[in-house]
Amino acid sequence: MKQQLHNYLNRYVSFSETEVDMFYEVLTPKTFNKKDYLLKEGELCKDKYFIIEGLVRIYKIDAKGNEKIAHFGLENWWMTNMESFILQEPSLLYIQAIENTKVLAISKMNLELAFQKIPKLERLFRIITENMFVAIERKNELYMKYSSKERYHNLVDHIPDFAQRVPQYMIASYLDITPEYLSEIRKKK
Amino acid sequence: MKQQLHNYLNRYVSFSETEVDMFYEVLTPKTFNKKDYLLKEGELCKDKYFIIEGLVRIYKIDAKGNEKIAHFGLENWWMTNMESFILQEPSLLYIQAIENTKVLAISKMNLELAFQKIPKLERLFRIITENMFVAIERKNELYMKYSSKERYHNLVDHIPDFAQRVPQYMIASYLDITPEYLSEIRKKK
Repeated sequence: MKQQLHNYLNRYVSFSETEVDMFYEVLTPKTFNKKDYLLKEGELCKDKYFIIEGLVRIYKIDAKGNEKIAHFGLENWWMTNMESFILQEPSLLYIQAIENTKVLAISKMNLELAFQKIPKLERLFRIITENMFVAIERKNELYMKYSSKERYHNLVDHIPDFAQRVPQYMIASYLDITPEYLSEIRKKK
Repeated sequence: MKQQLHNYLNRYVSFSETEVDMFYEVLTPKTFNKKDYLLKEGELCKDKYFIIEGLVRIYKIDAKGNEKIAHFGLENWWMTNMESFILQEPSLLYIQAIENTKVLAISKMNLELAFQKIPKLERLFRIITENMFVAIERKNELYMKYSSKERYHNLVDHIPDFAQRVPQYMIASYLDITPEYLSEIRKKK
């Protein structure tokens, strides 16, 4: 796990072995089985999760009782409910494992301490937050500009094995279309 | 201008006078008249702008030729097209002054150098990018959850003088409603 973290960190900023070790020490390995919740609506989001292995989804339940998937999280992604984690307010969202999932977790307080001890982490999180910001703006753009069919192909082309790993009804929820319409799109490929 | 920057920076992180001076030195004061463009579609977004005084909007022109406003930027906000600035790709958006506007501008290269010289800036931009991320998620949430009327009141209640400073047709574009419908909402207040 440490090697995977090391490789990930050094994609963005050059960390020494000592810095990686210091960071690794404040991360807590956790395991979630398929369908386990990492966070439920109404709870405080206490942790940021670095996904070592597995797949999670972040979603909410709308006024009509339907699940609306906001994002998926895969290996080498940080997953959290940013709003609840930063503001320490109760979550409006659920985070759930879709596969058996191994993560490295860090609390807000430990992350703040790590920023003080390892200033390069500020740079890392500044860069990945900027990237997340661009990704969410692009997702909004895709929604306005492209058809469901184009958005489906954009999704499966960018994330290998995605269509195999994620149940169809979840992909439909993420794309905001019915499972029947998704099935039609897939047949026409 | 330096005092305003100083006050702004110290809202988030404690900067020394020397650090504020070092940062101020790499910022370039620029003035835009009402209706001037800070950025046009197809151009590279070279600068991040800290707004000292004035008001700008960031918008795109959709396939039907309609203006779609994504955000407004006021005093003490950083404004840029993040996607174009970070990836150094041509902008899909316009940034335009709605009032006569004074800014402090910084290029990507100078910002990178400033991060190296003044590590606390990494923390500042990590924090404000996280806040921006939360703001954009909240805006998406508002769109899904609330009526145009509620979104209008949320906007004018959170930003004082907003309804006086921004032309009605721009507020309508931002809320994705017709100017006629906005006028109805305002009458019913």
